[in-house]
Amino acid sequence: MKTQKRIRDFNIPIGNMNTGKNNSITDVEGVKVGHVTLNNNKIKTGITVVLPHTGNIFRKKVVGACHVINGFGKSTGLLQIEELGNIETPIMLTNTLSVGAAHEGLVKFMLSIDENIKSINPIICECNDSYLNDIRELHVKDYHVFEAIKNASSSFEEGNVGAGTGMVCYELKGGVGTSSRVVSIDNEIYTVGVLVLSNFGDMEDLIINGNFVGKNLKNIIKPEDEKEEEGSIILIVATDIPLSSRQLKRVIKRVEPGIAKTGGFIGHNSGEIAIGFSTANIINHFEENTILNMKIINEANINKVFKAVSEATEEAILNSLICSNTTKGKDGHIVYSLKDYVNELLPLD
Amino acid sequence: MKTQKRIRDFNIPIGNMNTGKNNSITDVEGVKVGHVTLNNNKIKTGITVVLPHTGNIFRKKVVGACHVINGFGKSTGLLQIEELGNIETPIMLTNTLSVGAAHEGLVKFMLSIDENIKSINPIICECNDSYLNDIRELHVKDYHVFEAIKNASSSFEEGNVGAGTGMVCYELKGGVGTSSRVVSIDNEIYTVGVLVLSNFGDMEDLIINGNFVGKNLKNIIKPEDEKEEEGSIILIVATDIPLSSRQLKRVIKRVEPGIAKTGGFIGHNSGEIAIGFSTANIINHFEENTILNMKIINEANINKVFKAVSEATEEAILNSLICSNTTKGKDGHIVYSLKDYVNELLPLD
Amino acid sequence: MKTQKRIRDFNIPIGNMNTGKNNSITDVEGVKVGHVTLNNNKIKTGITVVLPHTGNIFRKKVVGACHVINGFGKSTGLLQIEELGNIETPIMLTNTLSVGAAHEGLVKFMLSIDENIKSINPIICECNDSYLNDIRELHVKDYHVFEAIKNASSSFEEGNVGAGTGMVCYELKGGVGTSSRVVSIDNEIYTVGVLVLSNFGDMEDLIINGNFVGKNLKNIIKPEDEKEEEGSIILIVATDIPLSSRQLKRVIKRVEPGIAKTGGFIGHNSGEIAIGFSTANIINHFEENTILNMKIINEANINKVFKAVSEATEEAILNSLICSNTTKGKDGHIVYSLKDYVNELLPLD
Amino acid sequence: MKTQKRIRDFNIPIGNMNTGKNNSITDVEGVKVGHVTLNNNKIKTGITVVLPHTGNIFRKKVVGACHVINGFGKSTGLLQIEELGNIETPIMLTNTLSVGAAHEGLVKFMLSIDENIKSINPIICECNDSYLNDIRELHVKDYHVFEAIKNASSSFEEGNVGAGTGMVCYELKGGVGTSSRVVSIDNEIYTVGVLVLSNFGDMEDLIINGNFVGKNLKNIIKPEDEKEEEGSIILIVATDIPLSSRQLKRVIKRVEPGIAKTGGFIGHNSGEIAIGFSTANIINHFEENTILNMKIINEANINKVFKAVSEATEEAILNSLICSNTTKGKDGHIVYSLKDYVNELLPLD
Repeated sequence: MKTQKRIRDFNIPIGNMNTGKNNSITDVEGVKVGHVTLNNNKIKTGITVVLPHTGNIFRKKVVGACHVINGFGKSTGLLQIEELGNIETPIMLTNTLSVGAAHEGLVKFMLSIDENIKSINPIICECNDSYLNDIRELHVKDYHVFEAIKNASSSFEEGNVGAGTGMVCYELKGGVGTSSRVVSIDNEIYTVGVLVLSNFGDMEDLIINGNFVGKNLKNIIKPEDEKEEEGSIILIVATDIPLSSRQLKRVIKRVEPGIAKTGGFIGHNSGEIAIGFSTANIINHFEENTILNMKIINEANINKVFKAVSEATEEAILNSLICSNTTKGKDGHIVYSLKDYVNELLPLD
Repeated sequence: MKTQKRIRDFNIPIGNMNTGKNNSITDVEGVKVGHVTLNNNKIKTGITVVLPHTGNIFRKKVVGACHVINGFGKSTGLLQIEELGNIETPIMLTNTLSVGAAHEGLVKFMLSIDENIKSINPIICECNDSYLNDIRELHVKDYHVFEAIKNASSSFEEGNVGAGTGMVCYELKGGVGTSSRVVSIDNEIYTVGVLVLSNFGDMEDLIINGNFVGKNLKNIIKPEDEKEEEGSIILIVATDIPLSSRQLKRVIKRVEPGIAKTGGFIGHNSGEIAIGFSTANIINHFEENTILNMKIINEANINKVFKAVSEATEEAILNSLICSNTTKGKDGHIVYSLKDYVNELLPLD
Repeated sequence: MKTQKRIRDFNIPIGNMNTGKNNSITDVEGVKVGHVTLNNNKIKTGITVVLPHTGNIFRKKVVGACHVINGFGKSTGLLQIEELGNIETPIMLTNTLSVGAAHEGLVKFMLSIDENIKSINPIICECNDSYLNDIRELHVKDYHVFEAIKNASSSFEEGNVGAGTGMVCYELKGGVGTSSRVVSIDNEIYTVGVLVLSNFGDMEDLIINGNFVGKNLKNIIKPEDEKEEEGSIILIVATDIPLSSRQLKRVIKRVEPGIAKTGGFIGHNSGEIAIGFSTANIINHFEENTILNMKIINEANINKVFKAVSEATEEAILNSLICSNTTKGKDGHIVYSLKDYVNELLPLD
Repeated sequence: MKTQKRIRDFNIPIGNMNTGKNNSITDVEGVKVGHVTLNNNKIKTGITVVLPHTGNIFRKKVVGACHVINGFGKSTGLLQIEELGNIETPIMLTNTLSVGAAHEGLVKFMLSIDENIKSINPIICECNDSYLNDIRELHVKDYHVFEAIKNASSSFEEGNVGAGTGMVCYELKGGVGTSSRVVSIDNEIYTVGVLVLSNFGDMEDLIINGNFVGKNLKNIIKPEDEKEEEGSIILIVATDIPLSSRQLKRVIKRVEPGIAKTGGFIGHNSGEIAIGFSTANIINHFEENTILNMKIINEANINKVFKAVSEATEEAILNSLICSNTTKGKDGHIVYSLKDYVNELLPLD
């Protein structure tokens, strides 16, 4: 990962399990993440892409699942994931009003890589950055999708970058964060990674590793009165554990305890949506066999996977906060970063 | 099958696909069906059981799925089927108020076959037979479950037997009916079987193989004024095709076109519930492996399975009607059988 | 309605209930429908819009519901309809790869009518017209949304117009069709209207009013070998009956018997999605009251609404066929119209 | 409430909102709770009933909703709650294998109070008490349902009573717990109450008001090695706030943050199910009006209701622990009570 200070660097270890090599969603082999950041005066927005692998994903689909915690959101592609249990495009994150542009861009990208495509299920997820970003001006364009994909790498920045540029979480600067855990099954080491786009919550509710820091922080920071109109959190879960789509859906539901442990209560306006994929079973678009073999986990062993998702979610949210910079945006709105205040809160147990 | 005249015996072939050997759910190898019939004056009720196989199903679970078309019903066990995608007990059908007795009986049966059981998910489905049966007297007892299982066979009666004894369908005598179709995949022959417990519909809506016979029939029969208070149809789908639970759920949804083609419009009171299982993948309760191999169908080949379910459903409903006998029950209520009037409707195209 | 010959004009009455004045979704007061048709050589596509009312629908939302019959589809907006039970934009229909353009157009339209909007839930539904239309060229643009809305009227064309221009249904020319039914509740007359975008089915399965005409028709027409890659049907249900979103969801599920009665079996590729709204309860975006009064139907009276939806759906599909013209499109593909052959099938009972 | 020491009595206040008068689900007017406790050597089980009101609930149904967090459970009645949005029986809690007996008992009770009943939707929820209770002996009988209802009162015991007698939570003695919050809407005071049957979790994960006490506690207590085979938590949410069933479903989903804040991560075996009702709108079984008036909350005000549920859930779980007594049951298994060790953990912030 880039050289940003992350929550672990402040001696705040989340949970009990071991992280992957870089404590990142890209610890799952083949996964890459790319950003396009639009950050200029009142333009605070962008695109972040998660690539399950860098091959032709239309032809080599991955097992997929989705879970809607609170459906006050506009993400696309979930119907087909639910029906068919697979994912056939990269996953795009952007702002609420730019879903259409990202959709067009992703369609054009997919058409550009495969001339056989006449139908495709683009996955676009969104949060609303209108507190800092001049969202009505629709600054995200279709070509940003191509750029984001080109930028994709196993090493990427967190915080106010890409789709996270204008996000606000617990009335602090939020955005993109990631974390991972390793899971040992039968002497094999597998990885579970989570990437969040964080844009929800009231400052007074913030919990860091069990410490109710929110009220204290609110006394120190005294955030601006106005709240953003719309919250949300998007959670992308990646793994190389062999899972059926039903098992994967169960796995990604366990983002919820992770959110709750940072203080979230699933607010009315907060579109909370999880999308997951497993790279362990590839579904060929042009498959010649009629009966297929699939590897799945013996479900009696799934609890450690559940815990991994919960822990990585909690840490990814905290990373999205601690890696962000204080930001001044539209209408002079200022949102402060946790990293400017975390020392006043230390030591935390 | 028993020597009852079925809808095909009247030169009314449903659909285009070939039936299994006996045109029965028991054409799926290992599946057995048993009845206990309580038929005496105003007692018109019973139990019907479907056994996915005759081994210890707690230890050798089958892949399962359920689909709720209209949830005005009281069936049990669906939550866990949905979550875990498997079935670990025989499937019991009975009347609405006897779900508890059947549940107790099925728990006792399962405890009797395996001393390791401390938790079990009993599947009890129900329709309401209160028009003909003195339902408030709770004539079904827990021990009838043991009897029904003992009676289970690959050859069984249809019509007003078992749980079907008091059912009313299209204001005609309904009850238990079955049908099957064979599907060729990669030169292998597989079977899809459907068993229904039919208890829904208005006579004027009845369609037989595309013929709107309902109004004509109503003029001939002039059924009693009173309608039953509660409708319903339960549909059990069995197959030996390798399917994941997600695929199986898609398959069993295709009972709906079959119901509609007999004239059903999913009435408000009609609890319409489908439960399916595939015997092709066994899930061991005491499984030692942590990563499992599963066979599933290449979904590009699934349409023929969908058609099979739709056709078999339509025919099973018609068999439930044509195999039933005119019945006089509680409060002198009489419900006539289609078989007493079908000749007045012939020839049908 | 326009002066097209519809299925009733061939003495083929569907069902038993009375139609609304124009047998159209626009019989529901306030509802309007508009098309933009792109029809030129290998360009066979467009947009169709359904307006629940012509006011500011962001500020005056209508009660909404959605139901996914088969989720092999890319429609947007359903998550939020499901969560909040309302609809806050016009409903757009277009081709699969133009969802993004329509989304962008609809966002821009909504921004143009209300400067308070920073978040909006655009509803875009789609079918795949790639058999006749050069879908990869993305001919639908964002500004077509504005045109379609401007064109909206209570009188509109059916068949191969708007989003229906390139659709194929039962291997015949499909597209847009509509129908309505009136329902009397407590001496008040209410209306239920259905509009379909039809793009599914095999010719051999086609049923017209109970007549299995499909095989006969196939012998006459001998349709081209190639099948479209992707099916689908979108169904929009409008009513002025007071309904909660839960009740409305139940109501729109009853499109399924209507589809099945024309021969559909919910094919694997066929994205089948219903969206409904009731204009009887308006939800104000800027609502000052904290406790609201809502009118809903006594559910014991809901069966007639269910039947109305089923009948109107069946007739709307047939209207989409009979109102279309034989069409030659991309790669010289020809799809014939039912209206050119219906006389060879008559009389139908 | 009874004179048990509750979590607040240890200066551990959960959340920020005010509790109702007795900090109990029965603070919602009309709600009553009753227990039958079977506690004798290796018999550690029982029934707990929640009555939404003490009238004829079949004739005067309440608005209802359910939410399945993890469907590894056997509760009955959820299908119909989901479809119709109402509750027409008291809610019974018992052990997993006694669902059938409780079902029979509840059917008999309902038949005894209304001779018009021919169909009824009994709601039975369960957790598995087999670690302490000789569950295979089926000690709960149908008549215990009548007793539990007779025992129902606005004042009731918590901890190892009723259905909670044999439950184990965080490897501590669990069982029944309750809590409530008041919510002010437009100067009217409303109440939200939660009752839990707690039977889930690993000791090392236990969090009390943000304090990770689990590991410390585990070092002190050194719980027996064996874990119970099956977890679970049932949550009953009651309120007098006017809500539609859709709104109520959203409300009861917010039990999840409450569970997570005590350390739960939704384990594989843990059937986690929430059922809620609002007493503010009564649905008459014999309703003469065809159009009904319903009061619902303006959803922009719903966040405080969400927070109330989350807080009350967290506190109810802790009350279920702190009110229980150390218990020795089947096979000499001993499960210790938090109250015997809480002083070693104090002070907690």
